[in-house]
Amino acid sequence: MQIKEQKIKDFLNDLASKQPTPGGGATAALAGAMAAALVGMVTRLSADKKEDFKKIEEKAEKLRKELLSLADEDCQAFERVMEAYRTKKEEPGRLRKIQKALEEASQVPLETAEKSVAVVRLAGYCVREGNQNAISDARVAIELATAGVYGALENVRINLESIKDSKFGEEMKKKMDDLLECEDLKAG
Amino acid sequence: MQIKEQKIKDFLNDLASKQPTPGGGATAALAGAMAAALVGMVTRLSADKKEDFKKIEEKAEKLRKELLSLADEDCQAFERVMEAYRTKKEEPGRLRKIQKALEEASQVPLETAEKSVAVVRLAGYCVREGNQNAISDARVAIELATAGVYGALENVRINLESIKDSKFGEEMKKKMDDLLECEDLKAG
Repeated sequence: MQIKEQKIKDFLNDLASKQPTPGGGATAALAGAMAAALVGMVTRLSADKKEDFKKIEEKAEKLRKELLSLADEDCQAFERVMEAYRTKKEEPGRLRKIQKALEEASQVPLETAEKSVAVVRLAGYCVREGNQNAISDARVAIELATAGVYGALENVRINLESIKDSKFGEEMKKKMDDLLECEDLKAG
Repeated sequence: MQIKEQKIKDFLNDLASKQPTPGGGATAALAGAMAAALVGMVTRLSADKKEDFKKIEEKAEKLRKELLSLADEDCQAFERVMEAYRTKKEEPGRLRKIQKALEEASQVPLETAEKSVAVVRLAGYCVREGNQNAISDARVAIELATAGVYGALENVRINLESIKDSKFGEEMKKKMDDLLECEDLKAG
């Protein structure tokens, strides 16, 4: 079942279980999705203020959907890593299969971090220009999306530790550094 | 319907709507609840490591339930504030009713922040002493619970702005300052 179709209490029970998925990567994506929904609320309450809130609302909706999908994709990517490790030692291409799975499992949380940074930016704009009666909601959105960013990056880093392709690793680190330059992001 | 009984997609739709509840306070509590569930997972994966992980697991379970309830309580407290403001201007005791509702609406997110700090502490212990294969999950739990703390405090502050009892305000500020001294909390 897709995570978005689950009841909140059931998702939390799955999360707390010994099963490796869902784990930190999926919750980081969900934190980003909650932040995107909060931005949606603030933009709806600010629509009469400025024309551009309609566009921000659409962007926030899109990001919310993408982050919800990323929560599922994170679980699937991690399951493929475990499957690769379970391949018989003597099977040809085993190491390549593991490396490929690890690379994918680092790309999914990087995307979660990228989308969450996009939410941080929208929330920052809402804090400055949005309906000031909803400013605390916009600020909470920054907090949650920031947690989505740093949480997702923890998952990128843990996978990079086992990735042997140093060029891939350097490129990923560069992308992470670029993300952290967002000014509305809280200090890590 | 209680928030925990809602499907994730339905909760997010409610959150993104123009309706004032659920809002930032409820999502802060949910971020704390997700972090508590992640701590639960890490403790289950660390149970053979140290005796005290059994106790931490129980604490995390309790905090998760409490934070889930606080998500609902936050909505109810805010609805009582709006109800108080809707009281007819000439009705006796109107201002007292508003002030009382505002005080309650600041106490609920303070409690959310307190419980989320407790989760931060447990997650910090998991990072240091828990199963190192789940260290990224423990770190994500710190990120999410930290967002729960700062997010909830945004809601305390916004209510304090309208509270006239300066003694109450000072006491609340003191409690907020005390919470922020937790060493495992990320910098705000």
